[in-house]
Amino acid sequence: MDEGQIKQLLQRFRNGEIDEKSVIESFKKLPFENLSFANIDHHRTLRQGWPETIFCEGKSTDQIVGIAEHILKNNSYLLATRIAPESAEEVIRQFPDLIYNRTARTVASKIPDKTPEKKSRVALLSAGTSDIPVAEEAAETLAVLSIPCIRIYDVGVAGIHRLFDKLEQLQEVDFVIVVAGMEGALASVIGGLIGVPIVAVPTSIGYGTSFNGIAALLAMLNSCAAGISVVNIDNGFGAACVVARQIYHNDKTSK
Amino acid sequence: MDEGQIKQLLQRFRNGEIDEKSVIESFKKLPFENLSFANIDHHRTLRQGWPETIFCEGKSTDQIVGIAEHILKNNSYLLATRIAPESAEEVIRQFPDLIYNRTARTVASKIPDKTPEKKSRVALLSAGTSDIPVAEEAAETLAVLSIPCIRIYDVGVAGIHRLFDKLEQLQEVDFVIVVAGMEGALASVIGGLIGVPIVAVPTSIGYGTSFNGIAALLAMLNSCAAGISVVNIDNGFGAACVVARQIYHNDKTSK
Amino acid sequence: MDEGQIKQLLQRFRNGEIDEKSVIESFKKLPFENLSFANIDHHRTLRQGWPETIFCEGKSTDQIVGIAEHILKNNSYLLATRIAPESAEEVIRQFPDLIYNRTARTVASKIPDKTPEKKSRVALLSAGTSDIPVAEEAAETLAVLSIPCIRIYDVGVAGIHRLFDKLEQLQEVDFVIVVAGMEGALASVIGGLIGVPIVAVPTSIGYGTSFNGIAALLAMLNSCAAGISVVNIDNGFGAACVVARQIYHNDKTSK
Amino acid sequence: MDEGQIKQLLQRFRNGEIDEKSVIESFKKLPFENLSFANIDHHRTLRQGWPETIFCEGKSTDQIVGIAEHILKNNSYLLATRIAPESAEEVIRQFPDLIYNRTARTVASKIPDKTPEKKSRVALLSAGTSDIPVAEEAAETLAVLSIPCIRIYDVGVAGIHRLFDKLEQLQEVDFVIVVAGMEGALASVIGGLIGVPIVAVPTSIGYGTSFNGIAALLAMLNSCAAGISVVNIDNGFGAACVVARQIYHNDKTSK
Amino acid sequence: MDEGQIKQLLQRFRNGEIDEKSVIESFKKLPFENLSFANIDHHRTLRQGWPETIFCEGKSTDQIVGIAEHILKNNSYLLATRIAPESAEEVIRQFPDLIYNRTARTVASKIPDKTPEKKSRVALLSAGTSDIPVAEEAAETLAVLSIPCIRIYDVGVAGIHRLFDKLEQLQEVDFVIVVAGMEGALASVIGGLIGVPIVAVPTSIGYGTSFNGIAALLAMLNSCAAGISVVNIDNGFGAACVVARQIYHNDKTSK
Amino acid sequence: MDEGQIKQLLQRFRNGEIDEKSVIESFKKLPFENLSFANIDHHRTLRQGWPETIFCEGKSTDQIVGIAEHILKNNSYLLATRIAPESAEEVIRQFPDLIYNRTARTVASKIPDKTPEKKSRVALLSAGTSDIPVAEEAAETLAVLSIPCIRIYDVGVAGIHRLFDKLEQLQEVDFVIVVAGMEGALASVIGGLIGVPIVAVPTSIGYGTSFNGIAALLAMLNSCAAGISVVNIDNGFGAACVVARQIYHNDKTSK
Amino acid sequence: MDEGQIKQLLQRFRNGEIDEKSVIESFKKLPFENLSFANIDHHRTLRQGWPETIFCEGKSTDQIVGIAEHILKNNSYLLATRIAPESAEEVIRQFPDLIYNRTARTVASKIPDKTPEKKSRVALLSAGTSDIPVAEEAAETLAVLSIPCIRIYDVGVAGIHRLFDKLEQLQEVDFVIVVAGMEGALASVIGGLIGVPIVAVPTSIGYGTSFNGIAALLAMLNSCAAGISVVNIDNGFGAACVVARQIYHNDKTSK
Amino acid sequence: MDEGQIKQLLQRFRNGEIDEKSVIESFKKLPFENLSFANIDHHRTLRQGWPETIFCEGKSTDQIVGIAEHILKNNSYLLATRIAPESAEEVIRQFPDLIYNRTARTVASKIPDKTPEKKSRVALLSAGTSDIPVAEEAAETLAVLSIPCIRIYDVGVAGIHRLFDKLEQLQEVDFVIVVAGMEGALASVIGGLIGVPIVAVPTSIGYGTSFNGIAALLAMLNSCAAGISVVNIDNGFGAACVVARQIYHNDKTSK
Repeated sequence: MDEGQIKQLLQRFRNGEIDEKSVIESFKKLPFENLSFANIDHHRTLRQGWPETIFCEGKSTDQIVGIAEHILKNNSYLLATRIAPESAEEVIRQFPDLIYNRTARTVASKIPDKTPEKKSRVALLSAGTSDIPVAEEAAETLAVLSIPCIRIYDVGVAGIHRLFDKLEQLQEVDFVIVVAGMEGALASVIGGLIGVPIVAVPTSIGYGTSFNGIAALLAMLNSCAAGISVVNIDNGFGAACVVARQIYHNDKTSK
Repeated sequence: MDEGQIKQLLQRFRNGEIDEKSVIESFKKLPFENLSFANIDHHRTLRQGWPETIFCEGKSTDQIVGIAEHILKNNSYLLATRIAPESAEEVIRQFPDLIYNRTARTVASKIPDKTPEKKSRVALLSAGTSDIPVAEEAAETLAVLSIPCIRIYDVGVAGIHRLFDKLEQLQEVDFVIVVAGMEGALASVIGGLIGVPIVAVPTSIGYGTSFNGIAALLAMLNSCAAGISVVNIDNGFGAACVVARQIYHNDKTSK
Repeated sequence: MDEGQIKQLLQRFRNGEIDEKSVIESFKKLPFENLSFANIDHHRTLRQGWPETIFCEGKSTDQIVGIAEHILKNNSYLLATRIAPESAEEVIRQFPDLIYNRTARTVASKIPDKTPEKKSRVALLSAGTSDIPVAEEAAETLAVLSIPCIRIYDVGVAGIHRLFDKLEQLQEVDFVIVVAGMEGALASVIGGLIGVPIVAVPTSIGYGTSFNGIAALLAMLNSCAAGISVVNIDNGFGAACVVARQIYHNDKTSK
Repeated sequence: MDEGQIKQLLQRFRNGEIDEKSVIESFKKLPFENLSFANIDHHRTLRQGWPETIFCEGKSTDQIVGIAEHILKNNSYLLATRIAPESAEEVIRQFPDLIYNRTARTVASKIPDKTPEKKSRVALLSAGTSDIPVAEEAAETLAVLSIPCIRIYDVGVAGIHRLFDKLEQLQEVDFVIVVAGMEGALASVIGGLIGVPIVAVPTSIGYGTSFNGIAALLAMLNSCAAGISVVNIDNGFGAACVVARQIYHNDKTSK
Repeated sequence: MDEGQIKQLLQRFRNGEIDEKSVIESFKKLPFENLSFANIDHHRTLRQGWPETIFCEGKSTDQIVGIAEHILKNNSYLLATRIAPESAEEVIRQFPDLIYNRTARTVASKIPDKTPEKKSRVALLSAGTSDIPVAEEAAETLAVLSIPCIRIYDVGVAGIHRLFDKLEQLQEVDFVIVVAGMEGALASVIGGLIGVPIVAVPTSIGYGTSFNGIAALLAMLNSCAAGISVVNIDNGFGAACVVARQIYHNDKTSK
Repeated sequence: MDEGQIKQLLQRFRNGEIDEKSVIESFKKLPFENLSFANIDHHRTLRQGWPETIFCEGKSTDQIVGIAEHILKNNSYLLATRIAPESAEEVIRQFPDLIYNRTARTVASKIPDKTPEKKSRVALLSAGTSDIPVAEEAAETLAVLSIPCIRIYDVGVAGIHRLFDKLEQLQEVDFVIVVAGMEGALASVIGGLIGVPIVAVPTSIGYGTSFNGIAALLAMLNSCAAGISVVNIDNGFGAACVVARQIYHNDKTSK
Repeated sequence: MDEGQIKQLLQRFRNGEIDEKSVIESFKKLPFENLSFANIDHHRTLRQGWPETIFCEGKSTDQIVGIAEHILKNNSYLLATRIAPESAEEVIRQFPDLIYNRTARTVASKIPDKTPEKKSRVALLSAGTSDIPVAEEAAETLAVLSIPCIRIYDVGVAGIHRLFDKLEQLQEVDFVIVVAGMEGALASVIGGLIGVPIVAVPTSIGYGTSFNGIAALLAMLNSCAAGISVVNIDNGFGAACVVARQIYHNDKTSK
Repeated sequence: MDEGQIKQLLQRFRNGEIDEKSVIESFKKLPFENLSFANIDHHRTLRQGWPETIFCEGKSTDQIVGIAEHILKNNSYLLATRIAPESAEEVIRQFPDLIYNRTARTVASKIPDKTPEKKSRVALLSAGTSDIPVAEEAAETLAVLSIPCIRIYDVGVAGIHRLFDKLEQLQEVDFVIVVAGMEGALASVIGGLIGVPIVAVPTSIGYGTSFNGIAALLAMLNSCAAGISVVNIDNGFGAACVVARQIYHNDKTSK
């Protein structure tokens, strides 16, 4: 039931076509049907670029193509994450406008560059080269969300001097995403050096007691540098969404 | 070695009082000594209210009093977290200007209300009444950081209707902190309803398979609502710092 | 906003006192405010004996007394679980009509026996004598919910012959609650012998690798006897609520 | 030894063909042999549709076909769960009357619709599309058990508004099965909104800290909504059996 | 229903006092009631010294005294394990014939030395001095079971030479119990050196990653020396029972 | 250095061919070289059938064939466990006297039946059909060790009546091996019913929270039936070795 | 900015070409750029043989070849660990001077034997034959680092006598690396017998409760023999690096 | 049996006082008795200052005093770790020459300063002030072992600049011990900056997901800086022993 229908109902009530009891009866069902309508402003804002996302792990190529078709009928943008090469190739074959990033394991809509003048707003750090796929998933998500970012890869604490001449750059962005596996110490080191908002993404990179990312996750949750927040293991997409919530909110409120 | 000392060194070099080799020798040690000076702008900004914090768990009353004394000599503000009642009472006895919040288990400096005109910028939600101490730790930290907040307590999903008439309020703040123990579902529900930045704090409230907060932590890390970030179990202080990084950064960049 | 207020709003709209836009504006807030009203029938049914519950662990005597006072002003019944002896004694001193069950660690309202003619509807089994407190918590909860039960204690599989002459009784109730710690095998054995609905409660009884009830929990979740469901460790209260949902629902639908 | 044999024994004893000692000797073995006979009523009731089940994981196609053949000789109905596509196809080829549900990974007997007039008695909810296979396993099990159900899929808390207009339906069934992976919050939300009996099935859907369903399992065991019970991860079959125990018991006792 | 009652029943049936149907009706209940009777030989054998045991952890002094009183009325022997000093003293005060072993945390009946001529049949090894309480619990249990043992304490692998001159002794007993905490390596070393039956008891001795005995437990379960079996952490009582099952069985079958 | 060499050394010393210092020098190395000699009696006894074993998991067919060749040169008997079908076939092709048990995943020497008159000494129980491979590994190991056993399969507690008419048999053997996955309750049930020595083998059969056998392992370690010992998950070989230690020891000492 | 650039800067400052402010501005950036320069001596020492390493797990053959090519342009030596056979063969095909060790899963530069006169400095022990690949990874790493070692394999505690005649050799090296899976007891036994520095490497060899090396890791961390340190599971490379740090440091300081 | 006794035995054999058989019989027992004698050189070296240690946790004051008395009779030095204040005071009262370090929770012999000229050989780092007790335990152990060290406390990565001006010092010692709780990142940072041997000690400092030191332990085991080894959580004593093994070995071999 949308606003038009409510108006109609009220008209019919004023016109005596329906009685008070019927109106109230209709309203009893309203709470649930109208929730989206109540949130509509917020949702519209959020969706100004918030893409429909397909999490491809465990889905067949047929299923992914089907969902993609459905999304592209109703949306301008699409993002598919954790897509296998063979699925990606089929999706690209059917929707040639989409772009496949093999490293990031994503297929995404090409976003017209609406922000040529804007400076990079997010710095995307990875500790090692093996963490890059997760970082790239974040990068692709940011791209679809029209949030410009810079990539600073392979600056883990084993070669900490590589990090130091990037610090100036880091202090000029609005958000830092730190992607690290193994012992995940990079998040703490960054947190101790700069005051910019930071979200940490543990990765499943490592072996033995890395326990598929648990070591890095625990390190990040226990960071002695205050004010670092954390998302799920390998969740580059989620980190980009944390950033997007903030940047969209800032943009909305700064208008 | 501060900026003044560098100037002096350069003067003496130009005057021929010391030779090139001595200057270079001095600079070899510079990198580490000067790091804080390089970061000084950032730190100054951050510290405009960023209090020195004492984590009191496992410290004796004597130790806490000693550290507090040291901090108060050099800083305007102090925050002590997880303080036991008997320690708190002794600290208050010796520094009567400090304020003890028994629920939050904090002792903190009284912050002059510099922001009378400002609207609340943070909403602090707790799922149950037992989660309030952690929420209050966040609230006290925000207070010392001069960030106004509203408290919305006991709105867990078991009585989800209590939450719904708060949604409008939630959409008007800059940040939402969700504090929840047991199954931690509140974070996901909020995340599905509003687009404002959210940080989730799992608490150790529960028993049996809550495993002292692990159940809530895992729920929050796996939230199906995208863009929620998480801090350590019971880490109300940390959540407030996540918010502070963002709000200080916004305030600095919006100037 | 309740039904009366909606009627009033509609009257004022028909009378032309307020315009269409104002009515719609009011309705925008309706969804959340009215949720409880939409669910009202369900809630009333459920609450016909569903007591307000205080989980006392981690609450001070003062807090418990305060909450109890508040509940007893608005409700006929009260149940306090996991209450310490000293708290219980103070609560009883102030509200002498309540009854303290030291084993169950509960304080509860005395429920008038409305069901003198009814047969026992629930069988409450415990594997060992150490599991009895959890079983008694379930028993007390059932009592406040006016659901008659029989207690069959200390029938664990180490002395399985004690169980066998109870089987006939078990087949005559509507629900069986199996409370067991250590290896929790009793649930599977019962599940293999009878077809009555069963809910299993693991307890933290045991030591070493019982891991405070995890061994029993896992055993119950992996039962080779199909159709057994499980609640949290030591959650006697929860098991009684599972039963109550079913029995209230049956009673409602069988009318 | 069945009832007939006992009669014969007693006759022979009365006729003096065997002495007292022999009768007692026979009875010494009785306890175990006769257990099934003692339970015979219960079993007959239970088996009025309770299918023989093959858990196919880790079994070869040959083994599955062999067991299926054996079952179909002695039973009217069969249910095979977690069957791989290639095994399923071979089973169907040999027993063309069976039906293969690829999503549910089940092969099952076609159950004649004995209940055309009956309303749906179970609502089967899934949080996401990825949880559907587990939900379908429950659905297929219910079908073989002749228990009609409705499917309400993809109503997770990330899009909680989709759930709300289903609530009325949910309050009309006898049992709700909630199937959810990731953070499993749907069970708590449903539990907070309706009073109908609920069994929750955690699924292994998720990645990283979902730990193959542990996150969802813990959330469900710790639900702040009282009276929800839980089965093993991905155990759609088990949830259907929980429901069947209840519904068969109700049907038997309401006669 | 015991053997006498069955005889009576058969007499009355032969005499025509009761009909066939009544006899069968009585037998329907027989299976469960008679289980203990069927097992009676076995139980009698087992109980020739198998003491009634009270696990005292979590029981009040009053409860322990009560249970002890009940046992001593019906049994010759009693064993109470994990008893606190204050409880033990009260039990001893009331039953002065019992003996309290402070290290073993046991109170036990004094067993008359029926086996003066017998050689030690069990060797009880502990790795460190801190493991002695668990070893002593085993020793006290063996004593009540009339099984003679020798104690060989503090022979852990850190001082492995102390172990070597005990090997000859070890090869002369019928069973070796190895009690070890920390890394539990002693069990493997013994297993590699002798062929006598071995049961390993992990203890909770250690700190940090000993995880209260898990490290030792895992070591023992994964022993590269074949044929070692394991009991629960700190379960000295259980290890003695493993031995007792074997020795009683051997004694019975060798007669 | 064996006994002969020592004699020779002493002769040469008495003959003055070598001096005192050389003898002592030789003895300094003795402790380690002679350990096997000191244990020689024990080892000979043990090895009267104790086969050389190849654990094939993670070994290539070539490696397995090579080790088998080496063993068969020096030993009468061989046992290969956890062998893959393709490896087994190649081993059999090269050593046609060996026997492949596909279910047990073993290849073993054919042991001449030296004990035609002997009764079964071990009962091998499995809870479900899926546990049979682990049980068969134990059976094959016992066979190579010349220990006769009976198999009693598929007697899990879900159909506990099937177990009861086997109890008499169980009381006549010298050892019971209980093999069970899922919740592992069978071990406790057997332990509560008979007094014969029992070793429990948890299997990795199950899914979800069975955690590859941890559920069954914990159940067995926490058995409320005293005197049950446990080996590693899926360790059928190890259980047979526990039995063999006992039976060989008994046979040796009863001579 | 290197030393030359600093000199130039100072010259230009003395010549008046740049002012004081510019020099200070340049130095503000110095701390991070110059860190490597400050550490340059240390790095040079360390790198006298410290090879560039490629961790191949999760990298494609193309990626490995690419990285190898890049390293070999700039370095004399290369080490690739955890390389799959097919990748190794391709790498060898392209760089025929490299050597592939199939067991160690390494490809490495051939190191000219610069130390013909030197005695073995490291003893490399493995408990079982299955642990050899991890030991060989350590051996290959040591080889590339020009550190001579002896291999002592298959000396686990199940056949502890094999170890004893190696003890003399062990006391003559500078470092012992103990590689062991299953229960990892070998580390403790060695630690109790010799005083030489020891680093322990747990391996993932085992099954069931070995939990892919956790059992061995915990055993080693809890060793009752003092002064043993531990690296990650299966980390043969890391153990060699621990040794290398020590030996390089000793060599440097002993000059 | 020591060397003298062997000589005597050989003499008596040569003199014909005893026969060959008796000598061999004596040697059969030799292996174990003589092990310590075989290792005697090593042990003497090791014990040149290696103190007898009492791990006091879980021991009563009486027990500690007793053990201390025993040690001091036979040894020059003693070290008691993890001693409670009340125990320490009693020990000091009875042995006034011992020294109590309240922070380190140690009581130790005063070691005469035999090494006045020596430079510090070990640097002892702690990340936070709460980690100091563990660091001090290491310091006290080093003191008793006569190994001079410098303390560099509170240099965690949250204030990483404090660390940088200590780097020069760190490169001059022979060993670095890094003591850190929470996320334990300090070990990786140090490992990336210097080439000196490093042993890392995780501490149980932290809360929530620090899991009593597991987070720090995992971080250290997974350090991306190669060549760091790890000891048990809170094991300051063990870290000092790792260092002592190395330094004693170096000193012995450099002579």
